[in-house]
Amino acid sequence: MIRQKLIDTIKKHNLIKRGDRIIVGVSGGPDSVALILLLAAISKEFSLKLHIAHLDHGLRPSSSKDRIFVENMAQSLEIPLTCAKISFKKTGKKGSIEELARNARFKFFFQVCRKFKARKIALGHTLDDQAETVLMRIIRGTGLYGLAGILPKRKFGSFCVVRPLIEIRRKEIEQFLKKKKIRACLDITNLQDLYFRNMIRNELIPLLERRYNKNIKEILANMAENTGSDYEYLLSRAKSLMPAKPDFELKKLSQLHPALKRLLLRQAVSLVKGNTRRITFRHIKEIEDLLQNRPANSIVDLPGTKVAKTEKRLIFSPKKTQ
Amino acid sequence: MIRQKLIDTIKKHNLIKRGDRIIVGVSGGPDSVALILLLAAISKEFSLKLHIAHLDHGLRPSSSKDRIFVENMAQSLEIPLTCAKISFKKTGKKGSIEELARNARFKFFFQVCRKFKARKIALGHTLDDQAETVLMRIIRGTGLYGLAGILPKRKFGSFCVVRPLIEIRRKEIEQFLKKKKIRACLDITNLQDLYFRNMIRNELIPLLERRYNKNIKEILANMAENTGSDYEYLLSRAKSLMPAKPDFELKKLSQLHPALKRLLLRQAVSLVKGNTRRITFRHIKEIEDLLQNRPANSIVDLPGTKVAKTEKRLIFSPKKTQ
Repeated sequence: MIRQKLIDTIKKHNLIKRGDRIIVGVSGGPDSVALILLLAAISKEFSLKLHIAHLDHGLRPSSSKDRIFVENMAQSLEIPLTCAKISFKKTGKKGSIEELARNARFKFFFQVCRKFKARKIALGHTLDDQAETVLMRIIRGTGLYGLAGILPKRKFGSFCVVRPLIEIRRKEIEQFLKKKKIRACLDITNLQDLYFRNMIRNELIPLLERRYNKNIKEILANMAENTGSDYEYLLSRAKSLMPAKPDFELKKLSQLHPALKRLLLRQAVSLVKGNTRRITFRHIKEIEDLLQNRPANSIVDLPGTKVAKTEKRLIFSPKKTQ
Repeated sequence: MIRQKLIDTIKKHNLIKRGDRIIVGVSGGPDSVALILLLAAISKEFSLKLHIAHLDHGLRPSSSKDRIFVENMAQSLEIPLTCAKISFKKTGKKGSIEELARNARFKFFFQVCRKFKARKIALGHTLDDQAETVLMRIIRGTGLYGLAGILPKRKFGSFCVVRPLIEIRRKEIEQFLKKKKIRACLDITNLQDLYFRNMIRNELIPLLERRYNKNIKEILANMAENTGSDYEYLLSRAKSLMPAKPDFELKKLSQLHPALKRLLLRQAVSLVKGNTRRITFRHIKEIEDLLQNRPANSIVDLPGTKVAKTEKRLIFSPKKTQ
């Protein structure tokens, strides 16, 4: 049942191809343990070459136990494993611990990819993670790009992250592990936004299920899937209008449909800044205001990005961080 | 302050033009009373011809009091008034009382429009209504079309409904009326989905404000505005692909981007059914399944619509209701 759902998701979103070399992120928590078990179970059918990557964040005292658990798992499944340990103390860098941990995790996965000549990374996000993420973003404020939630498949340069469990409920995973008599470690995937996410998970979603709609998780996941597809289409249109350098003719830009214009401005920021983290709706509104209302030679300062208006153009450039 | 916000909204969404003839729906509740007062206050500046329309639903024992209140108001503002009374008992028609009331209200507004040669109807929906609507739809399940919430401006055939208060908070309206020393009637605009909406209004939104984000209403209204613009763009693309009759070439339809395809299928249903009420995500999925997977000569039965697949075409036709 869970195996078939996994295969359906893989086919629907074209996540995995026959013969793929895949780095599987395994923290030792229930989701990632189920992921590696399920991928191992279909690896013959799909001729997969799997490799486990385990990163010890060192954020919990028991983290070395997790590593030993994953080592034993890898051994019994006969899947090669790469472990690494990082520490966050006194890095002096900007950004929250969650963002640093996320960046470190991805950096590690990409390293393992390069070493083992793989381009695909599989992660254990579930339908529950999806519902929580969508709800978190709605509550904090988002647009179409955020409503799409966690994408089943996402490119990062030449690498590709896939989430084969994204349509599977956490409770199905727990049942699966129970049947297999496997006791996974405590889940630490909720490192990001730990406190806020836990409020959503343990308080808000149960209330919504009890009083408003018992299928709220599936409802939110469906919405993410649909708006994800809408976003993908809009993004493809916006990208087709993107100049080689983030430097726009004022006249052309002003005449675009507001939806395309906003997306194009976000894309321009993304191009010079490398991502759109910390870029909010208000920032985009400010660029729109610069474009529409402010005089030539005005400048807008955003996180990591500077936008300058000249007589005829709107020019985006990176800003050095102190 | 509230007057300037109203004018900003009018300009931003191009709701009202100089010299407009406008039918204003006034129930006697705070929102619609504030609306008529504010429109009366700017009517010279915009050379507006206002006309009040009041419908007595007869759903509350005190409804004739509301009518008298509105009559007095119209008299003191020197604005002409048309009243009507309807009754819902034993109509024998299908549909919920909320849907019937909504249809009756719009039918009445359109009649008044025709009689007074107006094409514009102004209604008193507020930012609070917007936030509640968006949250209701998210919880019940929706796509981009539903996330857009209550549109500031919407065409119905040759008529146009505008909502000049859509960016104004209910508490600002209450302050405004208090300052004017006007005690409006009890609000009956929440006739639709009364119970569910009141749970959202009195329980869920206060919880979200208290524990998650004190600006949740503005956040939801912003999201509605943004996704509304995204939806408008997608819809314009879908409409440009719409054949004269809802009868599609299978091959062309299959090759469209999923986002456009889904929207086009919804539009086709809307064309034959007159609206997309009671059409859910599952219904659209079923048409997609018919298109993609089922053999020729298959049929899908939806509320008010029949979709037939032939060798080369997908044909939508209306279904008679019993």
